[in-house]
Amino acid sequence: MTGPLLNKPPIEFYFDFISPFGYLGSTQIDAIAARHGRTVDWRPVLIGITVMKIMGIKPLTETPLKKDYLRHDAPRMARLLGVPFCPPEQKGGNSLAASRAFLWLKDFDEGLARRFAHAIYARRWAQGRDISDPQSVVEVATPLGVDAGELLAAIDSPRAKQDLKDAVDLAVGKGVFGVPYFIVDGEPIWGSDRLWMLEHWLSHGSWDRAPPMQSGAQ
Amino acid sequence: MTGPLLNKPPIEFYFDFISPFGYLGSTQIDAIAARHGRTVDWRPVLIGITVMKIMGIKPLTETPLKKDYLRHDAPRMARLLGVPFCPPEQKGGNSLAASRAFLWLKDFDEGLARRFAHAIYARRWAQGRDISDPQSVVEVATPLGVDAGELLAAIDSPRAKQDLKDAVDLAVGKGVFGVPYFIVDGEPIWGSDRLWMLEHWLSHGSWDRAPPMQSGAQ
Repeated sequence: MTGPLLNKPPIEFYFDFISPFGYLGSTQIDAIAARHGRTVDWRPVLIGITVMKIMGIKPLTETPLKKDYLRHDAPRMARLLGVPFCPPEQKGGNSLAASRAFLWLKDFDEGLARRFAHAIYARRWAQGRDISDPQSVVEVATPLGVDAGELLAAIDSPRAKQDLKDAVDLAVGKGVFGVPYFIVDGEPIWGSDRLWMLEHWLSHGSWDRAPPMQSGAQ
Repeated sequence: MTGPLLNKPPIEFYFDFISPFGYLGSTQIDAIAARHGRTVDWRPVLIGITVMKIMGIKPLTETPLKKDYLRHDAPRMARLLGVPFCPPEQKGGNSLAASRAFLWLKDFDEGLARRFAHAIYARRWAQGRDISDPQSVVEVATPLGVDAGELLAAIDSPRAKQDLKDAVDLAVGKGVFGVPYFIVDGEPIWGSDRLWMLEHWLSHGSWDRAPPMQSGAQ
């Protein structure tokens, strides 16, 4: 910390509710930002549905070798971070409805949208339950004070669909290809395994302070 | 450190001379192991040529979005680690000859093979020069006392080709899909951005000591 940094731009945090690593990042980013006097702009993307098509690659869950590594990796990363982790038994699913709901809520109240995001992530990755069905999104949102009928209408509206499409296009334009993905002061940082790197930048504003990985590991 | 760990198995370090991130890992692994009383078993693989075919994905350098991120990432990671980095101007190349030479040298003298590996990596990623041509491999090896004629014959021998193929098959059988890739006490750890995780395991032998990423980032 070098004093008040209120004029610094927010950390852009790109996430997809369908990603366990996005979940892991979501459990840390607000506290990391707060420690450095920064704010966070939460931005949903659709990695599985949209971004991988642009990259021309298949889903990670269908990639030999890597899929086994990732299945082993997510729970141990959760242990390292000290957060609950219980992946859903049923595979698949998508984050369309939840992401549209998030953007609709964000228009009204960023804090509410963030509480909703944490609750959706918890449902999917700490409780192992579905989030694809709009009704499941309603179950998460109504305890936060959101009107079920308005939410369902919003999820299904052309406006919400367009807003999410625009959000994905904007993210792709910035190079986002996976989650969690952070952009801080123009520096792109990808992965829940790179929170150390995000903190390094927030502390030093440079990559030159060596040797951070040696001293940073313990 | 919890005392002498001489009976612990070596850290398996999988590398490909063609990878800048393999280079970054190669500059750190011996010192990390030494700090924890461990040894390192250096094992060449052919990620670009062989492993990605098994995974059914195209090279990272041809993957939209990700390729731009990686081109930005390698130099800043080198700065973070405080090591020289100068990628070759000409793209492409392969590590076949250098990897065969490494395995041939390793059969005689592990220390010599490691010095050769560091010199090949330095040529490619600190000096930005080609390593594909067997003659370039000779240029690296002869200052280390290796006979040029014997080396060239070995590189071209059926035995060396089979040894490298076997090494790649063994690595794939263990799940190796990228470099640097470390296996320590059965735990697979991928990436030059996860040296903190390797150190965490070496220090604690567990993923449960929380919160490592918070304390580890400063």
